Amino acid sequence: MANKKPITGVYLVTDRPLCLHHSLAEVVRLSALGGVSFVQLREKETDSRQFLELAKHLKNILTPFSIPLLINDRLDICLAAGADGVHLGQSDLPWREARRILGNDALIGLSLETKEDYHSLIQTHPNPELDYLAVSPVFDTSTKTNTKPAWGLTGVTWLKTQTNLPIVAIGGVNESNAEAIVEAGADSLAVVSAICSAKDPKLATENLTKKFQY
Amino acid sequence: MANKKPITGVYLVTDRPLCLHHSLAEVVRLSALGGVSFVQLREKETDSRQFLELAKHLKNILTPFSIPLLINDRLDICLAAGADGVHLGQSDLPWREARRILGNDALIGLSLETKEDYHSLIQTHPNPELDYLAVSPVFDTSTKTNTKPAWGLTGVTWLKTQTNLPIVAIGGVNESNAEAIVEAGADSLAVVSAICSAKDPKLATENLTKKFQY
Repeated sequence: MANKKPITGVYLVTDRPLCLHHSLAEVVRLSALGGVSFVQLREKETDSRQFLELAKHLKNILTPFSIPLLINDRLDICLAAGADGVHLGQSDLPWREARRILGNDALIGLSLETKEDYHSLIQTHPNPELDYLAVSPVFDTSTKTNTKPAWGLTGVTWLKTQTNLPIVAIGGVNESNAEAIVEAGADSLAVVSAICSAKDPKLATENLTKKFQY
Repeated sequence: MANKKPITGVYLVTDRPLCLHHSLAEVVRLSALGGVSFVQLREKETDSRQFLELAKHLKNILTPFSIPLLINDRLDICLAAGADGVHLGQSDLPWREARRILGNDALIGLSLETKEDYHSLIQTHPNPELDYLAVSPVFDTSTKTNTKPAWGLTGVTWLKTQTNLPIVAIGGVNESNAEAIVEAGADSLAVVSAICSAKDPKLATENLTKKFQY
């Protein structure tokens, strides 16, 4: 897994209904101009054909910036679109299947909802072939339902002491709490509405990116 | 695409809510005992993890019978479960992407909802690398919504005159109309409720299989 971009900086997770002022593609383009590090395309209700078209479109936008595109859950969309990897939740395909199918060059991240998720991961695979672990949710949020209790800042710090893998914090991340989450140990901040719903997604991304430059 | 099983006989398409008298796995096992030729796992509301578990379970049931398992839409589930191929609808991933990703040994079938679907397929690919074309729906049905007007028997016969690819008829197929659909030109009959909802799925499969022995 050499030559991969370090997991740091702002990580945009898309949500089309939350794109209030611009199209999804424009939000992604503006966030790229603002210095976003990673983009994850998350689509839960779309048919496969449209999902693929969106993925290809975003990949075309991001390639000139050398910004990796990850796909939420769907390995097949990743393969068909030539995306850079997948983000997996606890009810998505197992990460080992994803690694087997996508190969070592793919970026693969896994959401942990609880400390038990981490323990059961490490119990079977002390050195999992993952590119990052996502603390999900770090704070309660309205953009994802049915999640377990939030990890909080202490949860981020706890996970940081447990693993050498990069930690992505997701859920309720915004400009006001970003610095505290980074200080707690997060390597990257995943945001949804803070960029998708921003009037100026470029500025929103720039402001979040600054939290890594203290 | 050598050494593939000919597309003929009864093709079970699963629908868990329609499995009224047995579990899905038991329906599949009984249909295998009854002589089913192909099984397609169709899941529209299930998360990826559960979809994969179901696919693996059905694959284990079918392997001793040498009955191929196809997955509806989801190439990633097919790859992860070691299934034999995919069935694609018009809003699923494009079949050429599926062929590229799954390789020549995979069974890949495509649903055609209208004559226009066929014309646009052939216009770009006079000899598409597909294993079958599905006439969908041959008759109106309650198990699939939002489909275009039914092809009818004349539609089956029309498609048979157009292509050398095997034709699978799906939609409203049951014991009473099966023979007429085969006579109209179908190489295989795809059924959902006629087997899933049968009190005796083995007998239902046997009775449908007989329609190919006239």
